[in-house]
Amino acid sequence: MNSSVNFADRLAETTKRKESVVVLGVDPQLDTSEAPGIPEDYTLTRFCCDIVEACAESAVAVKLQLAFFEARGIEGMHALSEVVAFSRRLGLITIADAKRADIGSTSDAYATAYLGRDRFGCDAVTVNPYLGSDALAPFFAKAREGHGIFVLVKTSNPSSGEFQDLKVEGGGALWEAVARRVDGWGAGFVGSSGLSQVGAVVGATYPAHARRARALMPRAVMLVPGYGAQGASAADAVAAARADGSGIVVNAGRTLMYAYRRRPDLDPALAAGEACEAMRLALNGALARRTPASG
Amino acid sequence: MNSSVNFADRLAETTKRKESVVVLGVDPQLDTSEAPGIPEDYTLTRFCCDIVEACAESAVAVKLQLAFFEARGIEGMHALSEVVAFSRRLGLITIADAKRADIGSTSDAYATAYLGRDRFGCDAVTVNPYLGSDALAPFFAKAREGHGIFVLVKTSNPSSGEFQDLKVEGGGALWEAVARRVDGWGAGFVGSSGLSQVGAVVGATYPAHARRARALMPRAVMLVPGYGAQGASAADAVAAARADGSGIVVNAGRTLMYAYRRRPDLDPALAAGEACEAMRLALNGALARRTPASG
Repeated sequence: MNSSVNFADRLAETTKRKESVVVLGVDPQLDTSEAPGIPEDYTLTRFCCDIVEACAESAVAVKLQLAFFEARGIEGMHALSEVVAFSRRLGLITIADAKRADIGSTSDAYATAYLGRDRFGCDAVTVNPYLGSDALAPFFAKAREGHGIFVLVKTSNPSSGEFQDLKVEGGGALWEAVARRVDGWGAGFVGSSGLSQVGAVVGATYPAHARRARALMPRAVMLVPGYGAQGASAADAVAAARADGSGIVVNAGRTLMYAYRRRPDLDPALAAGEACEAMRLALNGALARRTPASG
Repeated sequence: MNSSVNFADRLAETTKRKESVVVLGVDPQLDTSEAPGIPEDYTLTRFCCDIVEACAESAVAVKLQLAFFEARGIEGMHALSEVVAFSRRLGLITIADAKRADIGSTSDAYATAYLGRDRFGCDAVTVNPYLGSDALAPFFAKAREGHGIFVLVKTSNPSSGEFQDLKVEGGGALWEAVARRVDGWGAGFVGSSGLSQVGAVVGATYPAHARRARALMPRAVMLVPGYGAQGASAADAVAAARADGSGIVVNAGRTLMYAYRRRPDLDPALAAGEACEAMRLALNGALARRTPASG
């Protein structure tokens, strides 16, 4: 890992080299009455690491959904540290999907946890904007050391509009006000790629919003969730790309990790690897076919 | 622990019995150039548990600030589980200050982590409203089992107004729109105390907001941070109480845990115990003197 390189430049370089905008979401679900979260004969660590390895050629990054590790207690946190270390050894960029934010001294501790040098330390982290600038400042301080920050702007869940779409003073929706601030926060962190280390989460389930988001945040790397299990198509998922196709990475978690449920002839790793490569090709195809975003 | 009892009723009963609205914030700071986060000759676990024990008579609950445990890696998470277990053994109500929220399946994992039966499981949790209802639904499902949920409404940090104070369609500020939704979410969870298991975080650094918050959320238990180190007075801190003085608990973290820095004659536990009892009396005095909130 070389965290002193601008995160956005590193992501852009990796995207070009691997011809991929795919992020593997490591989301090891909890058991349900229908299906186990971890396949029979696997441990949590082995399941995650096998999937990571199988997707390492097609994906540029892994996004670790912390909730599924925290829900498994100390053993889960051990597994998290092992999956982070394993992903780094494979040269993958690591994103801690934490969605944290708190008062300054507490956010500082979160930044230490997920962008620090210890075992949970990743290259980038997702954060929540509700508390405003000073709650995010400790994360931006880590951007000065080369790390990436993805601020939730417009999320992919069904009720994301409940507050995010409220019209606010000055015009536009709340999420647009957040987008404008993200653009401002990121201004000091633009690398040679023209992209900023302060990026945004913009859900693929709302492609019209994605194009508007690009107009408001021309320099942001957008982390796009919602592809696959949440219903967004490849064309939807790349709607926020810049005119040259850069500036986005697209996450899929369950769609890749549980691909084996649709392919009983394959083991989990093989099924995930195939699905990940298919996703890479589908997104590249959609990028090639798209009308560049206005703005 | 008896988590099938309505959380708000349990908190109200404990408040009455102990004549206290004090919540001990277990916020073991990271080391800085000026001072160590953990006093010399202490471990993280021993420091936290000694402070919890010293405050157990004067406080009704402990609020564990997860960031400071996560920042210390696996060892920190071990300590978290030990401090939760120790606090429960002393009969203290436990609040996981997580400020989490994510898409439904992920929030479900967070709810399992912090309101479940495993080692990080607490009686209540703090959550962030930015993603809307479906991101909070898994937490509300746990309220059905007796747990408490505190939704961030108006936070205590300097830039909390950046988005929370934006005027939104329909009138009022964003935080007021969130407050109205909290009141709605909590309607089905009102106990015999007249208080709901769906509560709110309303910072004491904004007492005028606190009174308005009470008008908008008459049934909410409000968790009030900002007392002490963040600058709010006892009168400020109780501004959101109901006319009969009920419906609030007030948190102090650094002010109690690091009281020994102002009292070099005392060890950390003794200093914290004294400061906690002084806080209890100051808040009770402020409650006795106050003009009941309008609304």
